[in-house]
Amino acid sequence: MAEEALVLCISALNGTFTNDQASVLCNQFAEASSTSTGMTDLVVGLNTLYLTSCGALVFVMHAGFAMLCAGAIRSKNTMNILLQTVMDAAVSAIAFYILGYGFAYGLGDKPNGFIGDALFGMSRWYSKNNNDLVGEGWQNWFFQWAFAATATTIPAGAVAERLNFNAYLIYSFFISAFVYPVVVHWVWGWEGWLGMLRNPELTHLFRSGMIDFAGSGVVHMTGGLAGLAGCIMVGPRMGRFDSNGNPVEMPGHSATLVVLGTVLLWFGWYGFNPGSQLLITTRANASVVGRAAVTTTLSGAAGCLSCLLTAFFRHKAWDLVAGCNGALVGFVAVTAGANVLEPWAALICGLTGGWVFDFVCWVFLKLRIDDPLSAAPMHAFCGAWGVFFVGLLAKREYVCASYGKDCSEWVPYGLFYEGDGRLLASQVIGIICIFTWVFGLMSLLFAVLKFCKILRISAEEEQAGLDVSKHGGSAYNYDHGLGKPEKAQALGL
Amino acid sequence: MAEEALVLCISALNGTFTNDQASVLCNQFAEASSTSTGMTDLVVGLNTLYLTSCGALVFVMHAGFAMLCAGAIRSKNTMNILLQTVMDAAVSAIAFYILGYGFAYGLGDKPNGFIGDALFGMSRWYSKNNNDLVGEGWQNWFFQWAFAATATTIPAGAVAERLNFNAYLIYSFFISAFVYPVVVHWVWGWEGWLGMLRNPELTHLFRSGMIDFAGSGVVHMTGGLAGLAGCIMVGPRMGRFDSNGNPVEMPGHSATLVVLGTVLLWFGWYGFNPGSQLLITTRANASVVGRAAVTTTLSGAAGCLSCLLTAFFRHKAWDLVAGCNGALVGFVAVTAGANVLEPWAALICGLTGGWVFDFVCWVFLKLRIDDPLSAAPMHAFCGAWGVFFVGLLAKREYVCASYGKDCSEWVPYGLFYEGDGRLLASQVIGIICIFTWVFGLMSLLFAVLKFCKILRISAEEEQAGLDVSKHGGSAYNYDHGLGKPEKAQALGL
Amino acid sequence: MAEEALVLCISALNGTFTNDQASVLCNQFAEASSTSTGMTDLVVGLNTLYLTSCGALVFVMHAGFAMLCAGAIRSKNTMNILLQTVMDAAVSAIAFYILGYGFAYGLGDKPNGFIGDALFGMSRWYSKNNNDLVGEGWQNWFFQWAFAATATTIPAGAVAERLNFNAYLIYSFFISAFVYPVVVHWVWGWEGWLGMLRNPELTHLFRSGMIDFAGSGVVHMTGGLAGLAGCIMVGPRMGRFDSNGNPVEMPGHSATLVVLGTVLLWFGWYGFNPGSQLLITTRANASVVGRAAVTTTLSGAAGCLSCLLTAFFRHKAWDLVAGCNGALVGFVAVTAGANVLEPWAALICGLTGGWVFDFVCWVFLKLRIDDPLSAAPMHAFCGAWGVFFVGLLAKREYVCASYGKDCSEWVPYGLFYEGDGRLLASQVIGIICIFTWVFGLMSLLFAVLKFCKILRISAEEEQAGLDVSKHGGSAYNYDHGLGKPEKAQALGL
Repeated sequence: MAEEALVLCISALNGTFTNDQASVLCNQFAEASSTSTGMTDLVVGLNTLYLTSCGALVFVMHAGFAMLCAGAIRSKNTMNILLQTVMDAAVSAIAFYILGYGFAYGLGDKPNGFIGDALFGMSRWYSKNNNDLVGEGWQNWFFQWAFAATATTIPAGAVAERLNFNAYLIYSFFISAFVYPVVVHWVWGWEGWLGMLRNPELTHLFRSGMIDFAGSGVVHMTGGLAGLAGCIMVGPRMGRFDSNGNPVEMPGHSATLVVLGTVLLWFGWYGFNPGSQLLITTRANASVVGRAAVTTTLSGAAGCLSCLLTAFFRHKAWDLVAGCNGALVGFVAVTAGANVLEPWAALICGLTGGWVFDFVCWVFLKLRIDDPLSAAPMHAFCGAWGVFFVGLLAKREYVCASYGKDCSEWVPYGLFYEGDGRLLASQVIGIICIFTWVFGLMSLLFAVLKFCKILRISAEEEQAGLDVSKHGGSAYNYDHGLGKPEKAQALGL
Repeated sequence: MAEEALVLCISALNGTFTNDQASVLCNQFAEASSTSTGMTDLVVGLNTLYLTSCGALVFVMHAGFAMLCAGAIRSKNTMNILLQTVMDAAVSAIAFYILGYGFAYGLGDKPNGFIGDALFGMSRWYSKNNNDLVGEGWQNWFFQWAFAATATTIPAGAVAERLNFNAYLIYSFFISAFVYPVVVHWVWGWEGWLGMLRNPELTHLFRSGMIDFAGSGVVHMTGGLAGLAGCIMVGPRMGRFDSNGNPVEMPGHSATLVVLGTVLLWFGWYGFNPGSQLLITTRANASVVGRAAVTTTLSGAAGCLSCLLTAFFRHKAWDLVAGCNGALVGFVAVTAGANVLEPWAALICGLTGGWVFDFVCWVFLKLRIDDPLSAAPMHAFCGAWGVFFVGLLAKREYVCASYGKDCSEWVPYGLFYEGDGRLLASQVIGIICIFTWVFGLMSLLFAVLKFCKILRISAEEEQAGLDVSKHGGSAYNYDHGLGKPEKAQALGL
Repeated sequence: MAEEALVLCISALNGTFTNDQASVLCNQFAEASSTSTGMTDLVVGLNTLYLTSCGALVFVMHAGFAMLCAGAIRSKNTMNILLQTVMDAAVSAIAFYILGYGFAYGLGDKPNGFIGDALFGMSRWYSKNNNDLVGEGWQNWFFQWAFAATATTIPAGAVAERLNFNAYLIYSFFISAFVYPVVVHWVWGWEGWLGMLRNPELTHLFRSGMIDFAGSGVVHMTGGLAGLAGCIMVGPRMGRFDSNGNPVEMPGHSATLVVLGTVLLWFGWYGFNPGSQLLITTRANASVVGRAAVTTTLSGAAGCLSCLLTAFFRHKAWDLVAGCNGALVGFVAVTAGANVLEPWAALICGLTGGWVFDFVCWVFLKLRIDDPLSAAPMHAFCGAWGVFFVGLLAKREYVCASYGKDCSEWVPYGLFYEGDGRLLASQVIGIICIFTWVFGLMSLLFAVLKFCKILRISAEEEQAGLDVSKHGGSAYNYDHGLGKPEKAQALGL
């Protein structure tokens, strides 16, 4: 091209000029050609900053989860759940390094749609079927790990206040090393059988494939369903239901922590969703990144109002926790379609997500399922709702922009916009398969743990609280300002 | 240009070369021309990452406000103010989506200097007079919404512990949908009558226009004045002043939360100010972004020391809350000129801002105005001080760099640098107009709410606390570590 | 070059073309040449965003330190340590503006390897020997200040609960204005005698120079050793050791704050380490940035598990604080080599760091050194371990990539990879010199303060707590939810 261009330019020549002018203007080309090599550098540099900063934002959600979980339970079990959140980050990092990332994204000698087979321990960046570059491999791992850690930490809220810590250690490794990565491979992998992101040369499910932008299904359903399996298998907390089976309120010990956690999660979601386009170096990608920030905001806002108002009409009080849960529900639901939903659709997504949440919570109480943080209704069911919602309201142009498809050809999109049902069907299949895989495997694991008698703590330990029985003390030791004499002083003086 | 360049280059030719060498070097041009299309992509991508990440930082200030407000009031009203902060984000998102952004930035069929008339519900990105691109429209909305949410949440501190929640819902929607966006249009809009950012083809106020970089006036005065109108109209908390009218200390319930809030606000300010250049893709812009981070830091530091020392000399104790307020005062004051102040000027800005703050707080107590978080002295008065300060110390070169003006022509700048008074005059007019608009409208609104008897809660509710009376419980339910028997256990066993 | 290129291209011409085609294709060059000027803009813009966003992340570590320190001590001293953290940020900003940055990076008329001599008060950006550009100078100052603030705040934990606040004010200014900047100049300065980053034209220590990527030595050893000098000189807290010299547990007042602080520090470390490459605009640099995020994560995870398991085997409980300290130990240790360690090496770095930490803590108790937050074992000793570790396991290719060296020539690298001992020797010399400089100077300072009787508070004040005696009250004033009558109400009604 460039040679021809020159050739043609030459043929357009005429007139004479001074050598001075000539050299001056030639320098423009000198600059252009000398900088041309920098272009790739800038592309890589910009994407690296994009992924690492978004990854850091996704990580800070752990601060959110920790505060949210701690605030929503009784103080006697605070250290236990706090330690779990910290461990989720640590355990998932090691599990994802050794196995998880490989199962999720490895393309080795036998690439297949079910599970990855390379990149274990980051040892095969050069695996011949693997497109990863060393340059980008690092930040991809980091960004993907932050997601794995999120999926791993979600169940903690569902089994809070009575799970055996050893059981926790086992399930968190299992999720981040195997259960979650397989789902990732299905939906986000280059070879995955389920997702729209699959290698275009391979056939897609219903010629469409599932859209799950940032993981309403991959991350939240996985985490939420693991929590569901856990809280069913471990059973309700002592005293959660009275002798007649009516629920007994067990208020969390700090609403301040619940709000801090919620707002930090909200903050982190701006890395979770806008970061999930994975590239920001073309106008189309940048536009998706910006749109994801907008739809995320609107859906969370709608969910917040939705749950707050429902709660108000139910028991005539402005329920803070309901408002916080509602915002989170909105984020969970829009995560699947933050890239392909119109702003007004995002509002509806959060609004309806709030209804789904309230309904499922109500059902849980009827079934005497005790999920202290409503992790399953929020992440599993509203996550599923979000995935389904995309099948209804994914906008055609947005699908093209986000998935680099040629809009002049056939493209799957939402039923509402008179799309055929292919996308919706893919979404439904996705929901069913994720449910089966995660709920099945995790139920099995928890059943084994139960059989081994290491699933739940003893009644005495539960009554005393996990902090005293397992973690060597209490989370809080107030003295001044609370009129309580201080151990240390007493001893010391 | 390029054609001429080629032409000229040709005229500079001489000698003969091998075709091999030729093709090799020609490839340099091939690369240069092939990447040339990517340039715009990178510009858009970089600005998108810049605005979305700064927008997220601005949002995290809500975590700061929530913790600061909660810690600075009595625990019996904690859930109330926490819910308000969460709702501010949610309500402002919906209000700004439907109306606010349009009033602020919409350029429709009748563009005017007072109020925007397009982009409502993001429905008119292509409005013929609107320069927004879809690509950039998204992140602009996101970034601007984060500012609207900040302005909306500031008043909460001033009316804390006695405002009726319904009144709160009404005023927060009113601010984010109408009051704040109009001020934005004046100062930051392309057509706005007040700001230096106005379309250069239109005449500017005093041929200068007001400089308010990140919103000491637009955001902080608006929020602070709304709070002032509110706390005057709603009256002081019960017991805030004794029978002789002397103030009675009402210490907040957690200094830890106050500090957490302050540091998170400090953190968020690094998105608030450096992000307000809106572009980072030229050297000049990048330099402003970096300078804004520096001036912000120095002004906050000076404000912190200023208030801490004043407090020490007043009552011989190192007052933590004074130090925190001082830092925030420094940030509020420098927000108007973070782009045009020298570092030493930023130090003076924060130092003097602290004095303004302490003086206004003293006056408030004399007038028996009860502003639990000193939101009005901080945001309204120190915001105004910051706007005024720019008129004194805006540096000429920095004005050119930040506003893309040609320094070889006449440019408005600070009086201190022997600038004529045009800029200062514009700043003063800006302060007066924002005060009139916001304080007038909000006083009217609060008066109506008072007339409708939905402004303030009853004495019984106030004494019991808003959490119990309106939000169905208490923010804190400690058990272990505080020697208090636990409801849940008692019930459960 | 470009002229030659054109000349050659011309010689490759042949054939004739239409002027239309010619002009069309010439426009490609028009675009290429017109954007060529933008290339530098993008480079500067991207680096600016990179440094400012990473700097903000480093700053948020202050929220982490504040919460961690507060949670780990008794509530009667909470306001004291919180104020110190806030002041560290404020004081260090002013000290670093006036003196610190100049001592660290100033290249004035007499550039030397020991200390900088320009850029004081940012007054000499154009100092003839100074490579800084105004454009980049701003964000460099900001990023470097955030590090200075970190080094300044580390000692607070070691001297907590008994240091005189005036003594604190003096030492924090001294560290950020002089002690820390000198170490920076040695290791990171262009003229520094100790570091690998030294001007290549000058001779390096052992022809290698010390590698301390993000400051295990420069930042953490400096802060930790200052803390060590302080807590030795000020002596243990009253009652920390019983009459037989056996340690008495003094549990912190809130495990929740400890975890919040830890996770916020973890979050901030993603700016601290990935940001320390300082450039992200080449593929090599971007790759280092990504790798730093990965190694940081893995080392922290390994440290967390290491300390958690050690604690479990020691006293049969899952110790939350041990897990948190372990993660921080992992970060501190990997900070020196986050750019040059393999992922597996990072795991070992954190794992062994945990052992170092536990051993040093044990020794401290034997020696009756009372470091309430184990700041010295963590930052001083694990920081030193991290610096040493680089001498063992720095990978050759990574050294080349990170330091822009030509791998075809001799390059210093880790002993483990059969590097000669030059790098390791440099690391050891670095450790010894930093220890001597910091511990020596700070011991001297604290000795003077002790001699002046302003080092430690009185026994009465210590027993009453610093908050009541020095800061005018208590950090916490709970009422509802804790059944405590409320002062304010009592007064008010």
